[in-house]
Amino acid sequence: MNEEEKDEKLFFAIKEIFNEKIPFNKILGLRVESLQSDRVRVAFEMTSDLIGNYMRGTLHGGVISSVIDVTGGLSAYMGILQKMSGKSLEAKLEKFGRLGTIDLRVDYLRPGLGRTFASTGYNLRIGNRVVVTRIEVHNDAKDLIAVGTGSYVVA
Amino acid sequence: MNEEEKDEKLFFAIKEIFNEKIPFNKILGLRVESLQSDRVRVAFEMTSDLIGNYMRGTLHGGVISSVIDVTGGLSAYMGILQKMSGKSLEAKLEKFGRLGTIDLRVDYLRPGLGRTFASTGYNLRIGNRVVVTRIEVHNDAKDLIAVGTGSYVVA
Amino acid sequence: MNEEEKDEKLFFAIKEIFNEKIPFNKILGLRVESLQSDRVRVAFEMTSDLIGNYMRGTLHGGVISSVIDVTGGLSAYMGILQKMSGKSLEAKLEKFGRLGTIDLRVDYLRPGLGRTFASTGYNLRIGNRVVVTRIEVHNDAKDLIAVGTGSYVVA
Amino acid sequence: MNEEEKDEKLFFAIKEIFNEKIPFNKILGLRVESLQSDRVRVAFEMTSDLIGNYMRGTLHGGVISSVIDVTGGLSAYMGILQKMSGKSLEAKLEKFGRLGTIDLRVDYLRPGLGRTFASTGYNLRIGNRVVVTRIEVHNDAKDLIAVGTGSYVVA
Repeated sequence: MNEEEKDEKLFFAIKEIFNEKIPFNKILGLRVESLQSDRVRVAFEMTSDLIGNYMRGTLHGGVISSVIDVTGGLSAYMGILQKMSGKSLEAKLEKFGRLGTIDLRVDYLRPGLGRTFASTGYNLRIGNRVVVTRIEVHNDAKDLIAVGTGSYVVA
Repeated sequence: MNEEEKDEKLFFAIKEIFNEKIPFNKILGLRVESLQSDRVRVAFEMTSDLIGNYMRGTLHGGVISSVIDVTGGLSAYMGILQKMSGKSLEAKLEKFGRLGTIDLRVDYLRPGLGRTFASTGYNLRIGNRVVVTRIEVHNDAKDLIAVGTGSYVVA
Repeated sequence: MNEEEKDEKLFFAIKEIFNEKIPFNKILGLRVESLQSDRVRVAFEMTSDLIGNYMRGTLHGGVISSVIDVTGGLSAYMGILQKMSGKSLEAKLEKFGRLGTIDLRVDYLRPGLGRTFASTGYNLRIGNRVVVTRIEVHNDAKDLIAVGTGSYVVA
Repeated sequence: MNEEEKDEKLFFAIKEIFNEKIPFNKILGLRVESLQSDRVRVAFEMTSDLIGNYMRGTLHGGVISSVIDVTGGLSAYMGILQKMSGKSLEAKLEKFGRLGTIDLRVDYLRPGLGRTFASTGYNLRIGNRVVVTRIEVHNDAKDLIAVGTGSYVVA
């Protein structure tokens, strides 16, 4: 396998874990849409389970903070990978399970109305241990619903 | 009805809405444990759906940020009630639906391990429109799992 | 005076207050570089007084958080002005003194090294009472030193 | 020298650096009031230079965020020392210069009015690399002016 094939295999494994092996991600219906070294994207659909304000039918704030947390984590992981070139697939995969959120800020900008939502994340700083990320959540009308900033550490 | 009976009726209605009418709260299994003018408490049980790290069996970070958001919101609502004495039950209830989170910070302190979790919230500042709250999440071993600070506004 | 001349007069007054009448802004050497409806810019020069780490000669973290706070405040004010068209110069100026920071997040990304620094701010959400802003601080080498998010309210 | 004498010497050196060697701390007039393993305290006096709102004579928000940042940093340092028992004075002192703020949240609760102010900090989590701290700023009337949460890393 060349580097590109290895990356493809790794990314496939990460998506599989993210989409299928993390129970609460499944509850939320999250799926990785794209994994790039400088940008990641997670999507999900509105369902009746995800509602917070039942009068207005908007997303629960916790759904938004949840997707921001995991999008930031995925982004941070892509940053950590950049410092692991040449390492084995196993070593790279193992890092994924050792990534933890230090802290998170979420700003709720507009009501969470829409049929589908996409959360994109990118890194602001990739340190040796700490990665700082920025996350934006849009609905299918391209309204910016919420933004977040998260700091992550490899345990 | 005297004031005390009115409060009891209001608090019963709020708990009913919180526990039964907010779909995502039900997914999380959240229930209001106590509502006091200066402190609120929300509890939930670990279930396999709420897991984030399937190797370690810990709570998903999004579950923690979700409970912090709603605990802060409940606390903020109690603060707003303090400025509404004499107002009707309907007026008071109506405010609950118009409360929104401006922003939230969550600090993840320890792994979310435990059988049950309790989130307590209290107000740091009760302004005319904006309420700032502090939230702490403990597990049943009394470990401090996470803390948060949230700002809320009445729309 | 037409609208444009009135704006010019208002912006001149705001710059005068910001640069000359706010004592701690003078200590920091802050000056407004540009005021636009959708973007503001504040600049300052490195001086020996502003150092935090005397071994490395970098900006004190408090200098960075200070400039982020006031840049966000200026940006929020520009947002509030958008809802005040037709109001008198006095009414507009008076709002400036009634703007307060609710909360602020600062992310320190790179060491504060440089001869001059520029802080730019723009609004993420302009509500009736609350404005949420985003701020970025660059040095003269265009390195992104720090970012911030601030929520502001008109008292 | 026994351990207690060594600690005294170290704390004296830290106070000396904090109060006298960090230029911007001097501008703010900050002085360490107490250093304990589980709590630190920094004080300063109101001066005309520190004013933000010249109509009301209140502290500049940047003064408050500055003192919160450095109080959190001192607290984090005390946490790091707990993991360095037996290490030399030089090794311990050297860590002080390598401590950096990852991010900071500041909540402005009440106007910064008073003659003197005290900022106290304590640690919420002491990790191997990352320390999370909580900071509270009071005026001499014991009003809680502001609170903050900061994450720190040893570079």
